[in-house]
Amino acid sequence: MTAAPAHTAVGPDVHTRVQHFYAHQMQALDGGRFTDYAATFTEDGTFQHSPGATPARGRDGIVAELVEFHKRFDGDPVQRRHWFNHIALEPQSDGSLRSTVYALVVTVRPGGKPEIAPSCVVHDVLVVTDESVQTRSRLVTHDQMA
Amino acid sequence: MTAAPAHTAVGPDVHTRVQHFYAHQMQALDGGRFTDYAATFTEDGTFQHSPGATPARGRDGIVAELVEFHKRFDGDPVQRRHWFNHIALEPQSDGSLRSTVYALVVTVRPGGKPEIAPSCVVHDVLVVTDESVQTRSRLVTHDQMA
Amino acid sequence: MTAAPAHTAVGPDVHTRVQHFYAHQMQALDGGRFTDYAATFTEDGTFQHSPGATPARGRDGIVAELVEFHKRFDGDPVQRRHWFNHIALEPQSDGSLRSTVYALVVTVRPGGKPEIAPSCVVHDVLVVTDESVQTRSRLVTHDQMA
Repeated sequence: MTAAPAHTAVGPDVHTRVQHFYAHQMQALDGGRFTDYAATFTEDGTFQHSPGATPARGRDGIVAELVEFHKRFDGDPVQRRHWFNHIALEPQSDGSLRSTVYALVVTVRPGGKPEIAPSCVVHDVLVVTDESVQTRSRLVTHDQMA
Repeated sequence: MTAAPAHTAVGPDVHTRVQHFYAHQMQALDGGRFTDYAATFTEDGTFQHSPGATPARGRDGIVAELVEFHKRFDGDPVQRRHWFNHIALEPQSDGSLRSTVYALVVTVRPGGKPEIAPSCVVHDVLVVTDESVQTRSRLVTHDQMA
Repeated sequence: MTAAPAHTAVGPDVHTRVQHFYAHQMQALDGGRFTDYAATFTEDGTFQHSPGATPARGRDGIVAELVEFHKRFDGDPVQRRHWFNHIALEPQSDGSLRSTVYALVVTVRPGGKPEIAPSCVVHDVLVVTDESVQTRSRLVTHDQMA
């Protein structure tokens, strides 16, 4: 190999900070704290939960999208948990990071067993500064739609 | 936002040390090495595997609790694996860390397919020093009991 | 305890570099980029996907093994994703690291729901330098064969 291996292009501190960022971000989403979730995006951030969807733009737009999406669970005491795995980071020429992450959605209802579906891939562009990590764009692809 | 984002309050080295701690801790549990598992708690550590249970106290108490719990698997060649995801850390005023972690229990029997249940949340208080990480208290909540 | 806890024997930077290495390595495998996957092994690396299998040796041997294995999916538009959890590292006397990792294989077909099986344990020996991480040997055990 002449090229440096992909896993060496982003340092360990940044990788861990991204992991910890995702932990708080996704616990906010699954906890129904949509404003906290939206605040993890840049001000002009975009969020597209499937390839065919119109991307939500900006934090207010992301909150509105989540409120709309979750209407399907009105009166349904469901707990959803978004699991992430294998966070692969690649630096972009503008200083941002491309982040490609496996995701599984775990859904549980009272007295029930977890349903684990769908299997997705999260395609993020992240803005990492000394102070924080933010998502600039998120597109989620679904394996069963391939 | 005026407050610093939640993911910035604990540094990356501590986050990674906690991840590695959990890897060894949970492989000890799933390997049936209960004394090793109990040794990952502080001497006065508590372990409560569900909200209704009486917490086990101290390392001997934790071992006794695990021996008792695993009697249900006597003669049953089961392999259980506790998966963790999204380790969200928050500093506490006494210097300890609150750790909130998603968990799924994978259960496999010879010739069988994995059963993945229940979906839980682990609520830990961790004591982190320069030398090591230890669990001071662990409460596990179950999503299907919500 | 007189011995240092297991999670303290390998520093946080190395642990994170291994995580990031695995993210890229397994996304290469699941993306069908077998040459990229093989390049994550040392030149004399070995890969044994189950205890009874003859280990593939060397990068060309690993590619050949993967091509052979994936013939079962010819004409089957399957997406497989290998999830990892609880990466426990232990230093070896020769400077390499033993890495013991939980793994689940997620399989999705168009329009279908994920199947999550088998549950495995990955037993790696890793060579970590300042520049990169490589797998020197990999043996995968399967929980349902226990």
